[in-house]
Amino acid sequence: MKIILIGASGTIGKHIAASLEKEHEIIRVGSKSGVIQADITSPASIEHLFKQTGPFDALVSTAGDAHFGPLKTMNDKEFRIGVNSKLMGQVNLVLIGQHYIKPKGSFTLISGVLSQDPVLSGGNPAAMNGAIESFVRAAAIELENGVRINAVSPTVVEESPEYFPYFPGHIPVTMKEVIAAYHKSILGAGTGQVIKAY
Amino acid sequence: MKIILIGASGTIGKHIAASLEKEHEIIRVGSKSGVIQADITSPASIEHLFKQTGPFDALVSTAGDAHFGPLKTMNDKEFRIGVNSKLMGQVNLVLIGQHYIKPKGSFTLISGVLSQDPVLSGGNPAAMNGAIESFVRAAAIELENGVRINAVSPTVVEESPEYFPYFPGHIPVTMKEVIAAYHKSILGAGTGQVIKAY
Repeated sequence: MKIILIGASGTIGKHIAASLEKEHEIIRVGSKSGVIQADITSPASIEHLFKQTGPFDALVSTAGDAHFGPLKTMNDKEFRIGVNSKLMGQVNLVLIGQHYIKPKGSFTLISGVLSQDPVLSGGNPAAMNGAIESFVRAAAIELENGVRINAVSPTVVEESPEYFPYFPGHIPVTMKEVIAAYHKSILGAGTGQVIKAY
Repeated sequence: MKIILIGASGTIGKHIAASLEKEHEIIRVGSKSGVIQADITSPASIEHLFKQTGPFDALVSTAGDAHFGPLKTMNDKEFRIGVNSKLMGQVNLVLIGQHYIKPKGSFTLISGVLSQDPVLSGGNPAAMNGAIESFVRAAAIELENGVRINAVSPTVVEESPEYFPYFPGHIPVTMKEVIAAYHKSILGAGTGQVIKAY
């Protein structure tokens, strides 16, 4: 398969690439690194990305910024960091990518545990994750030619201990479990699913 | 209680007002009608709204536009209709309203069944509803002074038969049930809840 990997240089992205590169063609995409650079907050940049890659079998996203900060002082501008990146970035990868993906291809987006189980200062990523989870359920019933779409929803990952203090009581998930969730979406047959890695 | 009702002239808004006006002060707000006009897509307009109302006990939203249309032709601009109105409009009512609400006050937002159970052409409202549902869970753990926040999630309402064809197999909810869900949030004690009216 020809797999476009958005966020290829990130913690999860690197492991996904390593787990699939022996048997598949991985096109590594990053905002500042990778074989192709793309800014997912820009629809024009996403369109340019797909013009470069051509038709593909799977698009895998591990990317999307959001704003962590106290609700008490949060404003529209801060909240829109997540809207423009984690939400619209990933939504536009699908809205535009649907015109380039091959029949029976798949989209795999990333949400996260905060949609269901919030932490302090996590209002923005929580909302963005909830939006992504509902979006994949809705998009799954409209995508044509057998194209599938799922979201992987991890909690804090063992490899990122710097986040542990913000997730009290969350049992960190192993990278192996996160990669398994991605494999279920990319290599499996389900659609419209939120695949939990927690 | 002093209750600010956003979307007061809408189908649901009118019934909420009628059900509460005998015992409470209702401040009717609409985009083009009501005692106060406000454009919830504009943070400046929301700030101006609260400067006019002053401190309040409950903010109730029945408002928020989204884009209905096929995924196949959907673009960033269309998807942002829901982002700017149903999502950011309601989020900004909370982000700004938290500085005006009285202790033990409440916010009640509106989501909708599509977050969990999508229909064709409903990708945008589905995602917005999912975002609102996760946002109220996250905001509930940060709001101070006993302030509560919930979402009411209705399916298609009996009073709006024009929507029935777009919701095949959805059993329309009665207005009585929708109003009961709002009462549970406004007059009850729960927080961080998605109160289903379906």
